[in-house]
Amino acid sequence: MKDTLNVGLVGYKFMGKAHSNAFRKLGMFFNPSLKVVMKAICGRDEEWVKQSAEKFGWESYETSWEKLVKRDDIDMVDIAAPSNVHKEIAIAAAEEGKHVFCEKPLALNLKDAREMLEAVEKNKVKHQIGFNYRFAPAVQLAKKLIDEGKIGKIYHFRALYLQDWVMDPEFPLVWRFDKKIAGSGALGDLGAHIIDLARFLVGEFDRVIGINKTFIKERPIVERMEGLSADAQAGAPRGEVTVDDATLFLAEFKNGALGSFEATRFANGHKNGMSFEINGSKGSLRFEFERMNELWYYSSEDSEGVQGFRLIQVTEPVHPYASAWWPAGHVIGYEHTFVHELYEFVEAIAHDRNACPDFNDGVKCSQVIEAVELSIAEGQWIEVDSL
Amino acid sequence: MKDTLNVGLVGYKFMGKAHSNAFRKLGMFFNPSLKVVMKAICGRDEEWVKQSAEKFGWESYETSWEKLVKRDDIDMVDIAAPSNVHKEIAIAAAEEGKHVFCEKPLALNLKDAREMLEAVEKNKVKHQIGFNYRFAPAVQLAKKLIDEGKIGKIYHFRALYLQDWVMDPEFPLVWRFDKKIAGSGALGDLGAHIIDLARFLVGEFDRVIGINKTFIKERPIVERMEGLSADAQAGAPRGEVTVDDATLFLAEFKNGALGSFEATRFANGHKNGMSFEINGSKGSLRFEFERMNELWYYSSEDSEGVQGFRLIQVTEPVHPYASAWWPAGHVIGYEHTFVHELYEFVEAIAHDRNACPDFNDGVKCSQVIEAVELSIAEGQWIEVDSL
Amino acid sequence: MKDTLNVGLVGYKFMGKAHSNAFRKLGMFFNPSLKVVMKAICGRDEEWVKQSAEKFGWESYETSWEKLVKRDDIDMVDIAAPSNVHKEIAIAAAEEGKHVFCEKPLALNLKDAREMLEAVEKNKVKHQIGFNYRFAPAVQLAKKLIDEGKIGKIYHFRALYLQDWVMDPEFPLVWRFDKKIAGSGALGDLGAHIIDLARFLVGEFDRVIGINKTFIKERPIVERMEGLSADAQAGAPRGEVTVDDATLFLAEFKNGALGSFEATRFANGHKNGMSFEINGSKGSLRFEFERMNELWYYSSEDSEGVQGFRLIQVTEPVHPYASAWWPAGHVIGYEHTFVHELYEFVEAIAHDRNACPDFNDGVKCSQVIEAVELSIAEGQWIEVDSL
Amino acid sequence: MKDTLNVGLVGYKFMGKAHSNAFRKLGMFFNPSLKVVMKAICGRDEEWVKQSAEKFGWESYETSWEKLVKRDDIDMVDIAAPSNVHKEIAIAAAEEGKHVFCEKPLALNLKDAREMLEAVEKNKVKHQIGFNYRFAPAVQLAKKLIDEGKIGKIYHFRALYLQDWVMDPEFPLVWRFDKKIAGSGALGDLGAHIIDLARFLVGEFDRVIGINKTFIKERPIVERMEGLSADAQAGAPRGEVTVDDATLFLAEFKNGALGSFEATRFANGHKNGMSFEINGSKGSLRFEFERMNELWYYSSEDSEGVQGFRLIQVTEPVHPYASAWWPAGHVIGYEHTFVHELYEFVEAIAHDRNACPDFNDGVKCSQVIEAVELSIAEGQWIEVDSL
Repeated sequence: MKDTLNVGLVGYKFMGKAHSNAFRKLGMFFNPSLKVVMKAICGRDEEWVKQSAEKFGWESYETSWEKLVKRDDIDMVDIAAPSNVHKEIAIAAAEEGKHVFCEKPLALNLKDAREMLEAVEKNKVKHQIGFNYRFAPAVQLAKKLIDEGKIGKIYHFRALYLQDWVMDPEFPLVWRFDKKIAGSGALGDLGAHIIDLARFLVGEFDRVIGINKTFIKERPIVERMEGLSADAQAGAPRGEVTVDDATLFLAEFKNGALGSFEATRFANGHKNGMSFEINGSKGSLRFEFERMNELWYYSSEDSEGVQGFRLIQVTEPVHPYASAWWPAGHVIGYEHTFVHELYEFVEAIAHDRNACPDFNDGVKCSQVIEAVELSIAEGQWIEVDSL
Repeated sequence: MKDTLNVGLVGYKFMGKAHSNAFRKLGMFFNPSLKVVMKAICGRDEEWVKQSAEKFGWESYETSWEKLVKRDDIDMVDIAAPSNVHKEIAIAAAEEGKHVFCEKPLALNLKDAREMLEAVEKNKVKHQIGFNYRFAPAVQLAKKLIDEGKIGKIYHFRALYLQDWVMDPEFPLVWRFDKKIAGSGALGDLGAHIIDLARFLVGEFDRVIGINKTFIKERPIVERMEGLSADAQAGAPRGEVTVDDATLFLAEFKNGALGSFEATRFANGHKNGMSFEINGSKGSLRFEFERMNELWYYSSEDSEGVQGFRLIQVTEPVHPYASAWWPAGHVIGYEHTFVHELYEFVEAIAHDRNACPDFNDGVKCSQVIEAVELSIAEGQWIEVDSL
Repeated sequence: MKDTLNVGLVGYKFMGKAHSNAFRKLGMFFNPSLKVVMKAICGRDEEWVKQSAEKFGWESYETSWEKLVKRDDIDMVDIAAPSNVHKEIAIAAAEEGKHVFCEKPLALNLKDAREMLEAVEKNKVKHQIGFNYRFAPAVQLAKKLIDEGKIGKIYHFRALYLQDWVMDPEFPLVWRFDKKIAGSGALGDLGAHIIDLARFLVGEFDRVIGINKTFIKERPIVERMEGLSADAQAGAPRGEVTVDDATLFLAEFKNGALGSFEATRFANGHKNGMSFEINGSKGSLRFEFERMNELWYYSSEDSEGVQGFRLIQVTEPVHPYASAWWPAGHVIGYEHTFVHELYEFVEAIAHDRNACPDFNDGVKCSQVIEAVELSIAEGQWIEVDSL
Repeated sequence: MKDTLNVGLVGYKFMGKAHSNAFRKLGMFFNPSLKVVMKAICGRDEEWVKQSAEKFGWESYETSWEKLVKRDDIDMVDIAAPSNVHKEIAIAAAEEGKHVFCEKPLALNLKDAREMLEAVEKNKVKHQIGFNYRFAPAVQLAKKLIDEGKIGKIYHFRALYLQDWVMDPEFPLVWRFDKKIAGSGALGDLGAHIIDLARFLVGEFDRVIGINKTFIKERPIVERMEGLSADAQAGAPRGEVTVDDATLFLAEFKNGALGSFEATRFANGHKNGMSFEINGSKGSLRFEFERMNELWYYSSEDSEGVQGFRLIQVTEPVHPYASAWWPAGHVIGYEHTFVHELYEFVEAIAHDRNACPDFNDGVKCSQVIEAVELSIAEGQWIEVDSL
């Protein structure tokens, strides 16, 4: 078996940058079983992709993903492009026999996600989906404690994903407000992460019921939407927002636990306020992304009189991934979650084992999302497995 | 008009003690417009009520509430007895022309609550319900900021009431697990408070949908249930728990805001974890009861670059009720909320104005609770006003 | 032995109110071994003291403390008057054979404090000093954990007492700025509490060195200083501030621990910011008064990977004093510390045992204060026992 | 002027890795005015340095710093080697006309530091010292608010740097315990950072007085000290610890502010607990490194009733350095401070302006450290400028 892994990345914006950075750091901080080579980056705008290649450290660039996935010198395709092109790239890459890493959401809908899963399975390539928050050390520690039985039987999972960046009604009609491109609004963008964390930490969903809302129904259309000030857009024509600004839903898990979920872009003061809490028969866990180096842990098995939520700083050598970085207390950030997830994918490829979370997890997440959407449309509980 | 108010209290346990303490402190820290006289306390166990009278500072005692409400020297009846006797005492007191303060929940069901409201209105007596959490200074400050428009249009209200005192499966089958006495479990006991705060701060409910669960379906029956250790009860016969251990529900308010509510007795590590957050177009507010002297306030109108949630310590003389107590930073506790609410009731009587929250608020709260219960039974959204 | 304890209180302002409230609550929430009778309150202004007697629930009043301490029906004298009169009242009371409770600071200086101690010892009366912060349940729990060896050998104690109420240069020249009445500024008023907590939790001081500052050297003199707005005082004549606005000092304890202390009235944003942290060979403890129901506890003996500061909510029945109040999580406040300390004094009297903290603790605290003052005057370390 | 900057790095351990990572990220996230080329890394162990070169992305390697500083293709020498070799490398590099970046502490003592400053000034090369904590966005924001007058006149600065990694008496006698190599213990290692922050934020020191302690006076000597478990070292011979485990000191600043400093490796539970608070006439600021994306800001100019410490999440595009990274709320970590500081050094070189903090800041910091040490030796206050 060869000892290198040649990567081709599709996408050069927010996620493209996050992934490029992760690949650059992989070899420096971890000892992956395969040497990762940043072979090519791909994007439609040649000038931009060329600059990105240089800036981010890719050996070459492409402007056509069709060409990229066919290149013989590419072993793995990493899809960090907009959601509406995930499907065709992933299937094409799989058919070329490339391993595929795909950003979340896997696809715009459950049907597409299933086709993608089918393609990677049929072609026997490794596949992983970019639920990066699983890879915060504190989340990994939470998982470990649950698996060790420290929390006992889980009764409750509640999660929030709160942002506020679009609250200004003059904030423009960017692609994230367009159902055709984004697939979904707060639910698909933010809710997907907490749905995945719920599956990771608690287990499969049984049934759901939700409510959603588009608080600002029309927004200014501007030529080049990103980067303009809200003021500059006041006089612009308006277009319809076709996705949800906020979605809330309740859930029952197959193991009997109750879940509460809220994803919103209208929570003033919250920038990236992803948080969850788990209550079980033996203890509880709490995590807030904006203090991502910390995990709160309560054990009802602690001695009487000194029970309390412990603020664990998940930066000690004994903690997941921590020894690869800095000494205890020298905190890491958002971008490190990408290094961890890509490290795991490389290892899955190297050792010919299934990656985790894989496209199946992407499908399951889409299934929950569609169940929530259907529950909203029909005003009643939906069994997740019925979809 | 006479300048004293003679009070008769029914109940001598947790709430009886809290109310007695409040009456004792009223005259010392506030200057109520009527001098409050602690005339009589009433309870079924003569030995206990006699001791309570002496210990708590009541002039006399009764063992029959029927007698108490008829006493000529009683102007106001304060009902701090178990929920299942609220109705008959309140109606009898009203018919005797006594002002009535009643602990929450007003009654075991909406129908009874409405009869009670009818009785106090027909008899033109003042009436108030014991939603004491409204009277935490921080909650009053939250209300003030909302009323002043500081939060703008409200988009989200989310509230939790988390406890953990019954998580041990060997915890005995106390009256709170019996639907006939308690009316409801976590929903009525804990949920009622956050429903009331939602109405106080956000407005009326439009529709709701919920889910609930009784995690531990049977519990040991013991002669005298309170005070025994769990161990001592292990061999005892079992009885059915007929109320919910946890209830979660989603809501839409009439003003378009979305609400999320969770009341549970199975949240390990949380003792009296009542908390809420409000997100509006101009700002946000956050409150946690266990740090009840604090209010978090975010204003998106703060200068760019220095926006952030402010931790307001609501103990300065300028804050609600604070000047009656101690210098700034010298925190108050749970029991003070009772002093505040009873002070307001005395003032309502003295100035012949409606009290707030009154029985109507109790009815509205019961209406939401029943709507939630119905939504659970029917598995679909329920319009609150349809009940 | 008789089963009642007749109390005479000197002082009707902030401390007089706090003590009166405590005596009123004592019998209701605790079962003191002696029935406490609020016999008489004493103050110079007859109108005010008369009103206070009625409002606070004292049976009678006096306008002369000399008369009060001589009354046959008084068993215990509680001194909550300004610091400059503590000495003569305490000595007179002791000579009349009355038990004496005295607010901190014991006296304006060490010499006076020692005379007071001599008087109570010579007359064999019980004596206690009002270091009320010792009686926060969280502080008692801290002491318990230390005594049980949970913290191990103590290396560090650091304490802050931060306030900000006098930062406005137009804040008037109240008595607390006058060395003749107050004895000391931030050091005596605030520092005394953290010095006492250090002695309580860590042990005796060996040597100290400090620095202090009077940031605002002159302030407006106004007829009746309290209650006037700063604006109203702008044109007033100025008088000299003769006490410290802030004092910081370092200490070495006899057991080798290092201490850091800061008491200031110029810490913007801090209302009653008393806090401390202790680091020992086996763990750490942290306390902040403004969240007085909480204690942070770190144990390096917790399992690897789940070590962290625990947020103990010190409101469970198992915690010090907590069972006398409300259910777990139903927080208490500042005023409750006074109930606890006076309960302990009553028990000391009832069971003929030494109270704690007693006048000896007051003397030791004064000794540290004077050592700090001397270290500032001389610019060098002072052995505390040399005074 | 050429548009590249060729860097030679000395050191490949903790700091070498942190600097290498920073250089790799510089071009990707910032647009430095000079293209940074990672030319050569230097270390004594050839195998290790060769691997490091490859792993960290350096074009070449050297095993002799003397050779490195002489290489024509090196423009800037970055010294991340142990403290005891800083001096000779820095002087040699300066004499070769290389710009010099040097990790803190500048040297083992003030005299050496001054020689280094002389060398860089004489040779007119740019120089900077690695006080990386200045470059946390929250610290930069603090500086900005102070400079804008938002805090007013500063009264208090208090800072802690708390760690606990050497508390186990069996932790081996690593080089950091050897005065000849490390120069100083907690004071030089940890205290240096908070001294620098004090100078950055408050201003120059006037006088200081301190105390220190070596709690564990002897430790096991083991062949290869790092990496062995404490257990394995129990039987090893003992050697003397010649540096301080903890140093505390008080300070007066030239502008009249009072300072309190504590640096210790014996604060159980604290991993990298660097924190400070500043109180001024108009407001306060608080920072804790372990939550480095946050700054607490109190303004007494906020409206009455809503004053409180604001938790600013310093991750918005408007905040220092934040726009180079991720969207708001997507937190960064420890390593990012190195990117910022090295970016600034590159800019200083590109634009021929003084870097900040430069060797002069290193000298001033050493001056304070020596003044503290002298104050401890002599038991009295030391004027910092007297050294």
